Amino acid sequence: MSGNAGKANIGVVGLAVMGSNLARNLASREGNTVAILNRSYEKTQKLLDEHPEAGFLPARDYEEFAATLAKPRTAIIMVKAGRGTDAVIDELVRVFEPGDIIVDGGNALFTDTIRREKAVRETGINFVGAGISGGEEGALNGPSIMPGGSAEAWQTLGPILRSIAAVAEGEPCVTHVGTDGAGHFVKMIHNGIEYADMQLIAEAYDLIRRGTGKSPAEIADIFAEWNRGELESYLIEITAEVLRQTDPATGEPLVDVILDQAGAKGTGAWTVQTALDLGVPVSGIAEAVFARSLSSKPAQRAAAAELPGPDGTFDIHDADAFVEDVRQALYASKIIAYSQGFDAIVAGAEQYGWDIKKGDIAAIWRGGCIIRAQFLNRITEAYAADPGLVALVTAPYFADAVTRTQQAWRRVVVAAAEAGIPSPAFSSSLAYYDGLRADRLPAALVQGQRDFFGAHTYKRIDREGTFHTLWSGDRSEVSAVDTH
Amino acid sequence: MSGNAGKANIGVVGLAVMGSNLARNLASREGNTVAILNRSYEKTQKLLDEHPEAGFLPARDYEEFAATLAKPRTAIIMVKAGRGTDAVIDELVRVFEPGDIIVDGGNALFTDTIRREKAVRETGINFVGAGISGGEEGALNGPSIMPGGSAEAWQTLGPILRSIAAVAEGEPCVTHVGTDGAGHFVKMIHNGIEYADMQLIAEAYDLIRRGTGKSPAEIADIFAEWNRGELESYLIEITAEVLRQTDPATGEPLVDVILDQAGAKGTGAWTVQTALDLGVPVSGIAEAVFARSLSSKPAQRAAAAELPGPDGTFDIHDADAFVEDVRQALYASKIIAYSQGFDAIVAGAEQYGWDIKKGDIAAIWRGGCIIRAQFLNRITEAYAADPGLVALVTAPYFADAVTRTQQAWRRVVVAAAEAGIPSPAFSSSLAYYDGLRADRLPAALVQGQRDFFGAHTYKRIDREGTFHTLWSGDRSEVSAVDTH
Repeated sequence: MSGNAGKANIGVVGLAVMGSNLARNLASREGNTVAILNRSYEKTQKLLDEHPEAGFLPARDYEEFAATLAKPRTAIIMVKAGRGTDAVIDELVRVFEPGDIIVDGGNALFTDTIRREKAVRETGINFVGAGISGGEEGALNGPSIMPGGSAEAWQTLGPILRSIAAVAEGEPCVTHVGTDGAGHFVKMIHNGIEYADMQLIAEAYDLIRRGTGKSPAEIADIFAEWNRGELESYLIEITAEVLRQTDPATGEPLVDVILDQAGAKGTGAWTVQTALDLGVPVSGIAEAVFARSLSSKPAQRAAAAELPGPDGTFDIHDADAFVEDVRQALYASKIIAYSQGFDAIVAGAEQYGWDIKKGDIAAIWRGGCIIRAQFLNRITEAYAADPGLVALVTAPYFADAVTRTQQAWRRVVVAAAEAGIPSPAFSSSLAYYDGLRADRLPAALVQGQRDFFGAHTYKRIDREGTFHTLWSGDRSEVSAVDTH
Repeated sequence: MSGNAGKANIGVVGLAVMGSNLARNLASREGNTVAILNRSYEKTQKLLDEHPEAGFLPARDYEEFAATLAKPRTAIIMVKAGRGTDAVIDELVRVFEPGDIIVDGGNALFTDTIRREKAVRETGINFVGAGISGGEEGALNGPSIMPGGSAEAWQTLGPILRSIAAVAEGEPCVTHVGTDGAGHFVKMIHNGIEYADMQLIAEAYDLIRRGTGKSPAEIADIFAEWNRGELESYLIEITAEVLRQTDPATGEPLVDVILDQAGAKGTGAWTVQTALDLGVPVSGIAEAVFARSLSSKPAQRAAAAELPGPDGTFDIHDADAFVEDVRQALYASKIIAYSQGFDAIVAGAEQYGWDIKKGDIAAIWRGGCIIRAQFLNRITEAYAADPGLVALVTAPYFADAVTRTQQAWRRVVVAAAEAGIPSPAFSSSLAYYDGLRADRLPAALVQGQRDFFGAHTYKRIDREGTFHTLWSGDRSEVSAVDTH
């Protein structure tokens, strides 16, 4: 007989909404018995009372929790990211044994995960940072899961996570992303793309509303229609739901009574900060993060309200054609956002030594998570056709898509600039696209300026080497040590 | 008699070009005697040999260096930022005494400076992080200097730094910025603004060149002309110089033989990363940093070269009018870049408890540094008129300027989008401007989306509180705990 009889094969620490829902999800799947632990037992008791069907094995403290778990013990931490996570890890390390597995299912910064994995590994215990996307509803019914950590830990953890993940086209939305912080890194990029996607949708709505005078409910119909085409995605779907919602108190469209100051929880900013470290331009994501912070500056906005400019209205000759232009601009800009996001994944994998399968990442985002979309199949296919693809937008499918849409995209950016409607993500994406395909960039002038004021040197188009012009001397050119 | 007779009142550690030039600058000013120290004595000897007029007091090691300095000993470290700086600080702390002053004149990240100041202060020694701008030439003839640190250190250091700083309209370009890391923080923002300024100039050049077919030499004349108006600045001046330069080897304009891949040393990225932490949208600076990193991706650019779009040429009916539009767009975008940069200074001062006088910062940037410009007087005046100014662009002078220029700005952004010429900084600045002055932003829709998928809640325009719609329930609205 095994000493594991009657024990739990998986435990959850932290029973706030995400943790409770994940525990219930685990318990609902064949073969799982779930141990649960919370700092205050009150929440544990509540979960036991409300969900007797789950057959939870409750623990009052870490010792009891460890004793309740079959070996190798496997526990998922679902507490707010930060110092609380370190405290729980310390406790689990204290009561666990070599070979056991600690999973952090919170939204940790991937560099924290790298640090924690290294520290925990020294005890012989496995540490897995796992990004979990899909919110409360995903945690309960099937999230997209992005685990990092060792291959050894994945052996045990894989079947458990596959049992609870969302399923897209028959495949569970979970894969072993890579070692140590790879999972949380990829989850961070997911969130960064989500910021860009949401901002693009918001700009599309704003342009259509101001450009055509359509009501939120009418625009809801447009988004619902778009959701049947190449833009089909969860975010487009819920946009239609939000726009259709009437405020019960006033009878106005809900979107008109919501204060227009967007909050943020930090993963968008992390994505941009990380991309800056990696030297990857993620301008669409950055503009989305900045658009939220701009919106949340009421004093500045009030002071700027009288600054001059067009009033945001414009004459549309053909509303349907304009709506179609906006749809195409949204699709093209979305391709840029994903292309930039995958650039960051490629650069991160190289920097941190992760063997990340880009196509698999796109595949596990097809279900459970916020950016789930049909579109992701095209990304998987692009990387399957060319694993060394240097930029997503250059893959045939996406190149065709921008070929089809780029003229509409330009018309929309032009209309926004002329009408004074802010469209930072649309216009930034277009500028990125035109920069990427440019034969020559004025970066050459920037290099000349840098050489002038800082002797930073430059390279030439016609021969190898690094050069400096003696600007304060006779202005001849000399070979120089590269100080870029 | 003082034990200080025959001793140096200031020392310099690190005699690479910046350090040597700063030491020579110090030695050239009445009342200064300069001790010098370098890791290898070879460079010390070379400086002694080449500049006997400086009367340097050389030291072979830290003990001799300390013995050569009058009390309170004051030394400026001029070594490459990073661990080298920590090593030199450790040595100076070993040989210095309480009340002495250690100045880091390198490009340290301000959070490192905060850490170092705290550690050194515990020994009773003063530590001052001082941003020094102006490159090699500024170090020799007069830089703009941004020192942080204690008021006590400023007593001794102030007169010395005032003696070597650039002078603008009779005032030395140095002020006590604030405690601990304030000086390096402000220097970082200076560099971030410099990135934006350079990118805007590069876009202006590119648009004029492609739009009008003018040669670099002709465009040099345009920049020289602009330098006599409201755009007067060092960067505009040197842009004319760079564009006028002919490559001796080929006879071509130098800007056409320079490889169009821009380098970066990191302070631009730091600025954006810091602004993201502070929740300040610095989109102009971010787009400038991204434009450089995009330019430095030759494989991606090659793969994207065949992507479709306009070829960058366009018909200009009136070249002079277009050039004037570009000038106005440049001025308006520049105002946005500075407005965003000063927002970051305000937010940093609040976050770190610095009493930074914004007007004084603008004043010390008028000379010595890379972004020196007439324009900075207007910023000083704006903060003098309203110390609590919430956004620079809303000050009367700048509001008037954007009122004058915003239509030209739009025409330029429109022309760039139509012609397929990347102008990320121009278009991003315009989008920011239109966002800031917008009566309503689609951020309300973003809040609705966030509430739908993550129960992140929202606020309402018509009453206090935080709310959540029961999206998966009966879609009524409930009061909620704020989870923004």
